[in-house]
Amino acid sequence: MKTAALIAEIRKKNSFLCVGLDTDKAKIPSFLLEKEDPIFEFNKAIIEATHKYAVAYKPNIAFYEAEGIEGWKSLEKTMNYLNTHFPEIFTIADAKRGDIGNTSDRYAKTFFDTFAFDSVTVAPYMGKDSVEPFLEYQDKHTILLALTSNPGAEDFQTKRVEEKSVFQIVLETSKTWKNSENLMYVIGATQASALADIRQIIPNAFLLVPGVGAQGGSLAEVCKYGMNRDIGLLVNSSRGIIYASQKEDFAKAAEEEAARLQNEMKSILNGL
Amino acid sequence: MKTAALIAEIRKKNSFLCVGLDTDKAKIPSFLLEKEDPIFEFNKAIIEATHKYAVAYKPNIAFYEAEGIEGWKSLEKTMNYLNTHFPEIFTIADAKRGDIGNTSDRYAKTFFDTFAFDSVTVAPYMGKDSVEPFLEYQDKHTILLALTSNPGAEDFQTKRVEEKSVFQIVLETSKTWKNSENLMYVIGATQASALADIRQIIPNAFLLVPGVGAQGGSLAEVCKYGMNRDIGLLVNSSRGIIYASQKEDFAKAAEEEAARLQNEMKSILNGL
Repeated sequence: MKTAALIAEIRKKNSFLCVGLDTDKAKIPSFLLEKEDPIFEFNKAIIEATHKYAVAYKPNIAFYEAEGIEGWKSLEKTMNYLNTHFPEIFTIADAKRGDIGNTSDRYAKTFFDTFAFDSVTVAPYMGKDSVEPFLEYQDKHTILLALTSNPGAEDFQTKRVEEKSVFQIVLETSKTWKNSENLMYVIGATQASALADIRQIIPNAFLLVPGVGAQGGSLAEVCKYGMNRDIGLLVNSSRGIIYASQKEDFAKAAEEEAARLQNEMKSILNGL
Repeated sequence: MKTAALIAEIRKKNSFLCVGLDTDKAKIPSFLLEKEDPIFEFNKAIIEATHKYAVAYKPNIAFYEAEGIEGWKSLEKTMNYLNTHFPEIFTIADAKRGDIGNTSDRYAKTFFDTFAFDSVTVAPYMGKDSVEPFLEYQDKHTILLALTSNPGAEDFQTKRVEEKSVFQIVLETSKTWKNSENLMYVIGATQASALADIRQIIPNAFLLVPGVGAQGGSLAEVCKYGMNRDIGLLVNSSRGIIYASQKEDFAKAAEEEAARLQNEMKSILNGL
């Protein structure tokens, strides 16, 4: 998907909501477990209930992998469903991959070709030649981990290299890579105060922002410091939406929570 | 597998060779493509031919993922074959995973439970809470990326944080994590000169060393600076062994290359 199409969808829906599909058999309503593919049935119901309010879906690949081959089948069905019925919606493989060139090339093929995602999250630790194979795909997007939302972000990402933090070096260095226009970045909502400085380094890139909801980040703060003229944000909520209820009414509860977040986003967009 | 069992196998075989199963349909002998599962048939033949000379096998997960569900089936069969016929052999999921705690927990389940690997490679960028879920598994091993063999290692890993490199901070910090006795580390063979300093920080941990062969690292240098009293090394060769020939004689050629490397290792061990 071209970035312009994503921006158009955000404007049309007055939403920059991404719904995280961290679908866990142990947490979905128990009546679904009788179905042939409970994970897909859950995802389908969540997507049907929330797609009016969301511009992106983000399957968290770990949750599918953990189910083995059955999990990958559920993922494939979910992606086919999304790409067939909602081609205007942006899809993110939250996979945190990254390896030497010939291996990253395979991961890029997995998510961009085999599963037809629009984007994939990538870890920067192995540097330029571990990321560039992802950047080669036209109209596909590589979402680089920069400053994450978890406590461990303090272990390495915020360590100071002379006058800068490691994550700032990641942002600056990544701009020099080939096809860097295909980069987006993960910046945790719990790090909202860093967003103003981050926007100095990468004014135009889209940011995928997890951590609103279960992890405690503030949507208003994220927008205040992180929004740019193209909006430039995809704010993710996973557990807060998909497990809003774990009973028969789960889809209705997810819809209400997505609508609530979209409404908050609409107010912010209208106030600009 | 307990570390003691790995050390015993190394002593018994006079080998610390790990064979990387970067199995790519585009590179395996074409006559195998007629089989029902070419990737598994290739792996099985390689394992049969090389297991006398190797103590570990390392499927590179990217190559299986890129084939979609069929690829995961090939991986499952490969792991069943290894665990059934060669339970004394150490298995490594080269997956480079790592995410927030509840997600790393799922990746650990994938590789330790679902696919029954002895170990998995993990990227450190997201810090402590992204790695500790892997460390909780008893007699399973987490192989943390420290200083990798690729050019991109210079982008962030060797950046200086005050008097130290980022990778040294990774090594030191990781020692403070819960169950850190389950840690091993990836140190590229192309970085042999750094091994003496690295052994000051982590004298006892096993190192998984890629980069001998196709990437140009030297086995003698790696042993000189990296070996400890338990040997403490797993030296990986992937393409150099599995693609030694791409014709009908591929298994024989792989056996010869594995035997050559094992013989070099034996000479080094006998010279100690």
